[in-house]
Formats: sequence, structure tokens, C-alpha cells
Amino acid sequence: MGSALDNSELVILRNGRIATLQAGAAGLGIIEGGAVVFARGRIVYVGPERDLPLGALVGGEVVDLEGRWVTPGLIDCHTHIVHGGNRAREFEMRLQGATYEEIARAGGGIVSSVKATNALSVEALVQTALPRLDTLLSEGITTVEIKSGYGLSIEGELKMLRAARALEQVRPVRIVTSWLAAHATPVEYKGRNGDYIAEVVIPGLKRAQAEALVDAVDGFCEGIAFSPAEIAQVFDVARELGLPVKLHAEQLSNLGGAKLAASYGALSADHLEYLDEEGVAAMAEAGTVAVLLPGAFYAIHETRKPPVAALRAAGVPMAIATDCNPGTSPLTSLLLTMNMSATLFGLTVEECIAGSTREAARALGLLSETGTIEAGKSADLAIWDVESLAELVYRFGFNPLHSHVFKGQRIAS
Amino acid sequence: MGSALDNSELVILRNGRIATLQAGAAGLGIIEGGAVVFARGRIVYVGPERDLPLGALVGGEVVDLEGRWVTPGLIDCHTHIVHGGNRAREFEMRLQGATYEEIARAGGGIVSSVKATNALSVEALVQTALPRLDTLLSEGITTVEIKSGYGLSIEGELKMLRAARALEQVRPVRIVTSWLAAHATPVEYKGRNGDYIAEVVIPGLKRAQAEALVDAVDGFCEGIAFSPAEIAQVFDVARELGLPVKLHAEQLSNLGGAKLAASYGALSADHLEYLDEEGVAAMAEAGTVAVLLPGAFYAIHETRKPPVAALRAAGVPMAIATDCNPGTSPLTSLLLTMNMSATLFGLTVEECIAGSTREAARALGLLSETGTIEAGKSADLAIWDVESLAELVYRFGFNPLHSHVFKGQRIAS
Ligand SMILES: [Zn+2]
Ligand SMILES: [Zn+2]
Repeated sequence: MGSALDNSELVILRNGRIATLQAGAAGLGIIEGGAVVFARGRIVYVGPERDLPLGALVGGEVVDLEGRWVTPGLIDCHTHIVHGGNRAREFEMRLQGATYEEIARAGGGIVSSVKATNALSVEALVQTALPRLDTLLSEGITTVEIKSGYGLSIEGELKMLRAARALEQVRPVRIVTSWLAAHATPVEYKGRNGDYIAEVVIPGLKRAQAEALVDAVDGFCEGIAFSPAEIAQVFDVARELGLPVKLHAEQLSNLGGAKLAASYGALSADHLEYLDEEGVAAMAEAGTVAVLLPGAFYAIHETRKPPVAALRAAGVPMAIATDCNPGTSPLTSLLLTMNMSATLFGLTVEECIAGSTREAARALGLLSETGTIEAGKSADLAIWDVESLAELVYRFGFNPLHSHVFKGQRIAS
Repeated sequence: MGSALDNSELVILRNGRIATLQAGAAGLGIIEGGAVVFARGRIVYVGPERDLPLGALVGGEVVDLEGRWVTPGLIDCHTHIVHGGNRAREFEMRLQGATYEEIARAGGGIVSSVKATNALSVEALVQTALPRLDTLLSEGITTVEIKSGYGLSIEGELKMLRAARALEQVRPVRIVTSWLAAHATPVEYKGRNGDYIAEVVIPGLKRAQAEALVDAVDGFCEGIAFSPAEIAQVFDVARELGLPVKLHAEQLSNLGGAKLAASYGALSADHLEYLDEEGVAAMAEAGTVAVLLPGAFYAIHETRKPPVAALRAAGVPMAIATDCNPGTSPLTSLLLTMNMSATLFGLTVEECIAGSTREAARALGLLSETGTIEAGKSADLAIWDVESLAELVYRFGFNPLHSHVFKGQRIAS
């Protein structure tokens, strides 16, 4: 941090009710009559206001929270917000009773997103992602994970990650990227997954790593996508490169993807509707976070729920995310995701809030940097106009954000 | 209208794609390259821009819509947005596995909303309703129906309607009120529904009518609320007073409420998950609108869906609404309601859009005033930043409103 802190650099948020989410604290780690002090983008104190050293109050900027609730800045740990086009026409056709074949003939399906994404420049991808990102930020989100996966060529995938990185330059947000070339097999490789992995997924990943575009490696392990053996080939390269892995697993069937991911020490396994006991145990053992995605569950009319009780019993950390994507989850609200996680999956209020803060940070390997309110961490905070934190989960289609803070920068709503 | 229109009073919205929702037009009544012209709060022209009389363009204010879509201003035709308190604690307890008895012991249930509502003054009720109303208005809503029903005493119910009327004075919106004293039996009348109706519901309704506070009469016909015979007593008085009726019917069971409502020529029957063929036929015969409320369906984990195919086949008009209320639908987004109507109930995109404009106006008896874009009607318009109207339904947790118009007043987003 260079030179010693001067009191004039301090920002002191006082008279708040603070959910610190600190590990080890009971529940959400609540401090009534609390204060958060930060300087140079980092938290230097959080605790009861009465315990603040008197000296700290001299010279700093004091902000009265007027009793408002404060949580860590929210984190959306699984999104596909960088993409071209939308699939509203396909959505409309399905409601009119169109078959998948009719939709495919009309140019629908993931192929249409790949085509629309590849038609755009980096700058155009940034522009089309901004309304989605801005909607997320309006809810006090300070970190967003963004995946590639609609390029399906080396250049196309790299372009998506360049757009994701560029978003961080134009908005106050931390962007974390994932290489998801193993999302679908492009038309030109149909029936040749092995060739696609060897010629695109792996060499592209090495380029992405060389250009510092990638923070983690992801894949879609499913009958309609890639087998565990194919995913393992990609994960082996990730390991060589020193990159953490994560996986779309057990969404539509149980192929043992979560267990595979856990065997690589994966940060997270995501979706998990068809996860079995063996997968739960493997995740618990490896400390792999379960990222639950109720938006996709809702939008595709899935009826099988992820095994929340088993995950809870095994002590698997649970995060939640929007999975914002044009095909199966055109959802851009993490608050609505909280409500859906409770309503559709039975998560408690505490699990929903921890799942979009501390556990989401854990799922991104960022827990030492953000996700809780603790001295030393980035000053990423969300300030809410609610009487109780349960209101964040209970309402749907309502945004009670008062303001938020990203790396110490205060952002009005 | 008094003096003749001068061209300088005209506002000409040109270069739009207009979904007029005009009766008789195919689909949504779409006009590409369209213009809407209004003056003194009323639409004077809608049609292809090329058919605009050249003279109209001289002197008027011309606004280029840049190809944006225009729909009628949205209408939320069933809400309870005026109320005190919230039920977040009860929501949280249910997720923790609390029984209804435990929740009741902790002061939960409708009793808590009645207590919180009765504790507030008219002015305080207005203040607590405003964040909900503002959220609705941010989606281009120009008309909101608001029910009483948490006072359960003559003064309490009148106070709620006074607050509803007052909202119209402080925001650019048309408010329509419903007398819903027959919502629940207050504790002091437990087991004495007849006395409650005779001593509170009916005399209160007469007072509300005398004070011009009420536009329609509503009730909750259900095993846990009022029987068809009890509702009929209230509806008889509505008929004497010349007030239209509507009914919460067939939400949790089939008591024949919709048929009863239809026999009174009801504007609408609402919820309808347990509606049978006889009820559908009666509604079709009477022209009673089916108001579908997917937010409540979703929040109470209902599994039985309203008989959409039967309603469609019988030609019953279908509207949709938020049912915004603290107990079973803390929902303040009509766009999310559209998505839920499609995803959970299988409504088509056209049905969702018509259901929140033209059919919602019909459900309020306001079709001659608003709900479609036609010469002579109120200039109530919503202007959208989308490429296709299907996007309004397809996304969830996203608001693409560009701006809206209420009675000719342009409102920026
Ligand atoms: Zn995904
Ligand atoms: Zn209702």
C-alpha cells in the first residue's frame, strides 16, 4: 500500500446494520449499530460503531447510513452476458407449440447465438452486453463472472473474452472470465468432438492464457455436449497451465461430471439437478462449490430439483447465480435469482444471501479479496433500503438498493 | 374538448413500430413505419406515417422514435399495493420449515397485514405504497387497479381507498379502486361472516360509494374466506348502487365463484386455477374477463394451472396482473408477470401483451378510454428499446422501457 494512511483518506460508514458474512460468525455475521471504514479501496475496520477508535473519526469523511442494512457487494458467479442476438423468436415459437425441429429449421437454438456472436466485433459485443451488465450493477453487484462459449472457434472465443475484459474498463465492476469453448460442438465439427477439442478448445485455451484473457476453465458435460473423458482432456491442459476449473454438470442427466470436476479440485460444479450422492460426497471432499441456477431450471420447465438437503447435510458450500444466457436463462436479476432459489429450491434466506456473496466469491476463487466485509478485503458493499434482509429474498421484481461501493468508490443508484 | 385544435398542440411520434392492439386487427394490430399523433391528452391519429396528412406535420412537435416499438401503456388490473408492513419474516420462517400454526403464533398471516395497515394514516399508506407504484410505473404502466381489504373495518377500508385515490394525485397514473372488505373475516367477527357483511362490508360500501371512493366491488370466494351466498349479498348491493363487480374465485378450490360472478355480469373473475368447464362457459356467456395471476401461483407453490386452453377455446378474454400483495405475491413487475404467464401458464407472447393492455383495460371496464392505441382514446403509450415485442416476454429481470406517455404527458425513464 505504499505510504501510511492519513485519516483524511478514510471513509466511515456509520449507523448501519451490517451483515459481514464473516466465516465463523453465526448466521450472516450481523453487527447492529455497526460501522465500516475504508481507505484506498480496502476495508480497514468493520465492527460496532462504539468500538471505533475515536481517532479514526477525526479527519475522515463520515457517512450516516441512517440504520440501513449493508451486505457485501453481490456477486454473479455464472453468466454468459457477452453474446450477440437474442432468442426471443424461438421462445415465441415454443409457446406456439413449435417442435425443436421446426425451431432448428427456423435458425433457432445455440447455432443462432453462435452466428450472432461471431458477427459482432469486440466493441459491438461490449455494447450489446452493457444493458445486461448495467441491470446487474443496478442491484449492487460488484463482481460478475463471464464465460466464452458462443464463438466455438479460437478467434471467436478469444473475442468474447476480450469483450468481457473490456467491460471492466467501462464500468465499476470486477470481471472474472472463464474459457468455455467446450460449450457445444460447432457445425463444422459435428460428430468430431475429439478433433474440436484438439484443434480449437485446447490451442485456443493456450492462446487465451498467453494473452491473460482467462481466469478459469469451464465445460458443458452432458449427453448433448461433451463426455467426462472429453472434459478431462481439457481439464488436464488447465492443470498444466495452472488454471482452476469448473463445470456445467448434471443439468439434464447424471454423467458424473461433478465427481470428475471434484477430482480436479474444481472451484465449482454448476446446475446439478441430477447430482447423485456420490457426486455430493466428491464435492464435499474437494471443497467444490455447488452453483445453483434456478433461472435455467424455471425457464426450461425442469421438474427435478438439485439435492439441496444432501448438499446441506454434506457441508457443500452453495452459491447461486443468474446463468444469464440467451437460450435457457435470459435472466439479469440476482435478486430475482435469490427469490427463485428460495421459492423453487427451498434455500433459506441466509443461504440465498450467502450464496450471492461469500459463497459466490468462493466459487470464483476470490474469497480472500471480496464476498465478505472484513478488514483487508476490497471495499465492495451494497447498501439497502429494507427493514430486514429477508426482504431481499421475499419480494420479486423489486430493487431496494440504496447505493453501493466498489473498491471504495461510492456509486449512487 | 372546447376550442378547435391548433397544429401547435400536436405531438407527432413518427418512425415507430406500433402495436395498436385494435380490436379486429390481426395479432397485435401492428403498423410498421407508423405514427401516433396526440393533443390535449388524446390520440388524434394512429396509422402509417405515409398516410399522415401533410398539414398535420406543420407546426406540431415531431419526435423521431428511431424505429422503436410502441404499445399501449401497460395496465396492472389486480393489485393490493396499498398496505402496511411486509411479510418477509413469515416468508423466512416458512423456508425454515415453520408450520402455519407457528407462523400464526409469531403474528404472521393476513392478520399481521391488517394490523400494520390499520396502524398507518392515509399519508403513511401513500408513502409506503409509492416505492411499489414507482416500480410499476418504471415499466411503462399507466393504469393500476388497487383494492382495499386490509382494513376490515369501515374506517380501515375507506382509509385504504383514500390512499389509493391520493396516489393518483402524486404520480402520473390512472388509479382504479375496488372495495374488497370481503377479503377476510376480522378476528372480532370470527365465525360470524354474516354479521361482518351486514355491519361492515355493506354499510362501508355504501359510504365508499357516497364518497366516490370506489369503482368496483370485489370479494374473496373461498373456503377460508366467503361463500358464494355471502358474496351474492355483497354483489346485490353493488348492483343496487350501479357498481360493477369482480371476484377472487377458484384460487384454492372450486366453489363456483366464477359462475356466480358471471351471473352478475362481472367485469372479471381472478386467479381461476380450479375453474371448471361450467365456470368457463358462464364467463364466456357473460363476457367476464379471466384475470390470471401467475405471481401468486408461483409464490404459493400451486401446481394446478388455470384452464388456459379451455378459456381460449371458449373465447374468454384473458388478462394478467401482478396481484401485488404482501402475503402471496410480493411482485411489482408486470414484465415479470408476462414472462411467468408464458413460462408457467403457457400463454403466447400475443396473449401476454394483450393481457397487460387491451384485456386488462377490458377487465377494468376502461376499454373505451385506454388499453389500445386508437384515435379518441387517452394518449397512454409505452415505448420500448427492443427489436421485437417478444423480447418483453422472453427476458426476466430486465426492463427495456425507453419512455412512456400518460394522458399525453411524456415521461422519461
Ligand atoms: Zn451456464
Ligand atoms: Zn388479489
